[in-house]
Amino acid sequence: MEKVKRYIDEHRERFVEELFSLLRIPSISADSAHRGDMVRCAEHLRDALLSAGADRAEVMPTDGNPIVYGEKIVDSAAPTVLVYGHYDVMPVDPLDEWKTDPFEPVLRDGRIWGRGADDDKGQSFMHVKALEAMISAGELPCNVKFMIEGEEEIGSASITTWCARHKELLRSDVILVSDTSMLGWDVPSITCGLRGLCYVQVTVTGPDRDLHSGLYGGAVADPAVVLSKMIASLTDADGRVTVPGFYDRVRELSPAERTDFGRAPFCEAAFCKSIGVRETAGEKGYSTMERIGVRPSLDVNGIWGGYTGEGAKTIIPSKAHAKISMRLVPDQDYREIGRLFAEHFRSIAPRSVRVDVEVLHGGFPYVCPTDLPAYRAAARAVERTFGRKPLPYYSGGSIPIISTFEKELGVKSVLLGFGLDRDAIHSPNESYGLENFLRGIETIVWFYREFAAGR
Amino acid sequence: MEKVKRYIDEHRERFVEELFSLLRIPSISADSAHRGDMVRCAEHLRDALLSAGADRAEVMPTDGNPIVYGEKIVDSAAPTVLVYGHYDVMPVDPLDEWKTDPFEPVLRDGRIWGRGADDDKGQSFMHVKALEAMISAGELPCNVKFMIEGEEEIGSASITTWCARHKELLRSDVILVSDTSMLGWDVPSITCGLRGLCYVQVTVTGPDRDLHSGLYGGAVADPAVVLSKMIASLTDADGRVTVPGFYDRVRELSPAERTDFGRAPFCEAAFCKSIGVRETAGEKGYSTMERIGVRPSLDVNGIWGGYTGEGAKTIIPSKAHAKISMRLVPDQDYREIGRLFAEHFRSIAPRSVRVDVEVLHGGFPYVCPTDLPAYRAAARAVERTFGRKPLPYYSGGSIPIISTFEKELGVKSVLLGFGLDRDAIHSPNESYGLENFLRGIETIVWFYREFAAGR
Repeated sequence: MEKVKRYIDEHRERFVEELFSLLRIPSISADSAHRGDMVRCAEHLRDALLSAGADRAEVMPTDGNPIVYGEKIVDSAAPTVLVYGHYDVMPVDPLDEWKTDPFEPVLRDGRIWGRGADDDKGQSFMHVKALEAMISAGELPCNVKFMIEGEEEIGSASITTWCARHKELLRSDVILVSDTSMLGWDVPSITCGLRGLCYVQVTVTGPDRDLHSGLYGGAVADPAVVLSKMIASLTDADGRVTVPGFYDRVRELSPAERTDFGRAPFCEAAFCKSIGVRETAGEKGYSTMERIGVRPSLDVNGIWGGYTGEGAKTIIPSKAHAKISMRLVPDQDYREIGRLFAEHFRSIAPRSVRVDVEVLHGGFPYVCPTDLPAYRAAARAVERTFGRKPLPYYSGGSIPIISTFEKELGVKSVLLGFGLDRDAIHSPNESYGLENFLRGIETIVWFYREFAAGR
Repeated sequence: MEKVKRYIDEHRERFVEELFSLLRIPSISADSAHRGDMVRCAEHLRDALLSAGADRAEVMPTDGNPIVYGEKIVDSAAPTVLVYGHYDVMPVDPLDEWKTDPFEPVLRDGRIWGRGADDDKGQSFMHVKALEAMISAGELPCNVKFMIEGEEEIGSASITTWCARHKELLRSDVILVSDTSMLGWDVPSITCGLRGLCYVQVTVTGPDRDLHSGLYGGAVADPAVVLSKMIASLTDADGRVTVPGFYDRVRELSPAERTDFGRAPFCEAAFCKSIGVRETAGEKGYSTMERIGVRPSLDVNGIWGGYTGEGAKTIIPSKAHAKISMRLVPDQDYREIGRLFAEHFRSIAPRSVRVDVEVLHGGFPYVCPTDLPAYRAAARAVERTFGRKPLPYYSGGSIPIISTFEKELGVKSVLLGFGLDRDAIHSPNESYGLENFLRGIETIVWFYREFAAGR
């Protein structure tokens, strides 16, 4: 292991430079204007895998953005680890809140700043460099496969079909994923629960054009007001979602599980301070950690309609829109929730407007048992590099594809992520600690050793 | 009168061409990028007044956009008519809904298409051309003054002070305004009631940055949801505004007035069809015409916050905003309503967010008595050109400055407008009938004769 560690240490500056090249490609999957960048980014990663020592690496087409596949097979008797990651990133607006160009990464205050620095280019790239270090040191104890997709931030639509078509190619003993955060740098943790997601877009249409609010105001339903009332009614005074059937399949924690759950260190005041709010809010009867980790939620991600420019324009808008997402927990099914939501939303619309509901994408929630051998290997790897046992953690986020892998490939995933809250993923000024990047690589190397040894 | 009519008929093509030059100037007052166009537009109008035969015309500075003043004094014993209009226009978005360039006017199907064709360049310019026709024919029976401002669409902030400073200059017997519509081309009408306006912008701030909706969803108040709930609560199930004190000064119609009011021809089905809705909506217990004409209302003119681009972005937005306007009726005071609204809106905000309320502008409602000599002169003028007596009409719109004129100058205004619903003012594809433009000029000429004769 000393040899690998030395290799990482000697090449750290180059590793960061190589990550910067990857971060410079604006691979925003939500914006079709960046379609060319997606291909460019996939090709860049393929080349990085080959440089790292992969036997094979290629950009494989899908109906959407391509998937980068790579492998290094050392021994057919050795266990096989399938690394999953994604090279697409979130949009960068509001652009004026970025202190530096989101696609011109910089190293400042020991951190790497740029879109994707953490989510998920930075975290995916640790695996490429861990592979390189193990191969260079002659210490790769497992077969390794990579699948890095370009649609994670928009629902991973293509990878499901792709997995179904390449089951043999993807045969493995565990899927290893770094796309999550730890509770804190001094509170290492491994995510063992992810929420599912159902993301919809709704449009409320009133008059067939924007109307003068003086000549019509008071006599015509205003779509922005109607949409507000409909959204308002989606959660009740106790913070519970009012869509009928929404909670039917929600698995409640047992009192013992709730007690366990309450053990993770959490400071409500620090949490509030870190995001600049006076107090938290949410479903009555649950703690903040429970609300995030094991309870479903409904959020409005965006709302728009009518005049939004400078000054005053006196109109009743023709249309108002909202993007609404629901985070789901076991055993909610995003397809069923999408149907229930659409039915309910249409049913509460007054006759004075028309309502359109489009389900944009969704995914199942996921749980990784803490007695899984691969989870135990990951926990030992973290303990070696962080000096303490990691806590199992329900993060609240969604990686919808993880439950799909289980369904399609029959393989469990271990979520060995090294992000921190302060990384501000999905927000302006995303960053990733240089130390997280380097210690992440080392931990991944330990994982391979522990996993190979512990089977 | 035959001489004037012949003059109008002989020069109609030139009149339209001249209006086109005026419409080509993109004088959008709500957008500070157009500040230079405002001055250019004012200078253009000054020149037009001088060409029409005014003794004097000038662009007078204010703290905001300049005001065009002009005059033609024929006889100190003759009555003086002060013409008010505005050269600023509404913004043009959504631009992609315009069939032709909003600032490249065209004549098509007997109509003039372009932003401001009706509101209020087309209607103001009728007065310039009426003056020219009367001077050319040697038949101007009144002194005429013009004040044409550039801030009507954003609240006429500068003209109040300007009026107070120029009381002597503006001394007159009546203010004549063409900035309103008729019930129909075959149902001529004169607006004798205008609603007041209180226009506010609100911002709800939650976390200090956009948050990942998975890592925080369910535990943090979502500003878009909170704003929706706050807006939803501003009107009750009966369509009444819930701001405490909102209705305290509303003058209720007597049963006799309501009967009168019901006499105006109105077809609910045609109204719904004309704007593409299945049914009307509004305050319980009042007809559509009453809701528009004599009842106050609350509308959301625009709402925005969070991610509004293509596809899905999973965030809890940091902020959500809305532009909210209230139309007021006698004797509501927009300053008091602004205060009541701001107090109420702040009071209903949960502790989990911060709320900012900014009153953008406002104005008083206005009533013109139908026994006013100038109103009667206008009614006779309309009867001469339209062949039937006009109906007095409560339009629902606001021209806040009209009540200010009464307060500052002690002069009543007559609202002799020639627009029609189909003109789509404030909307894409604004237009103005060529016949409205020409018959408007003739009616204005008649007004001067009737007003001079009837005193």
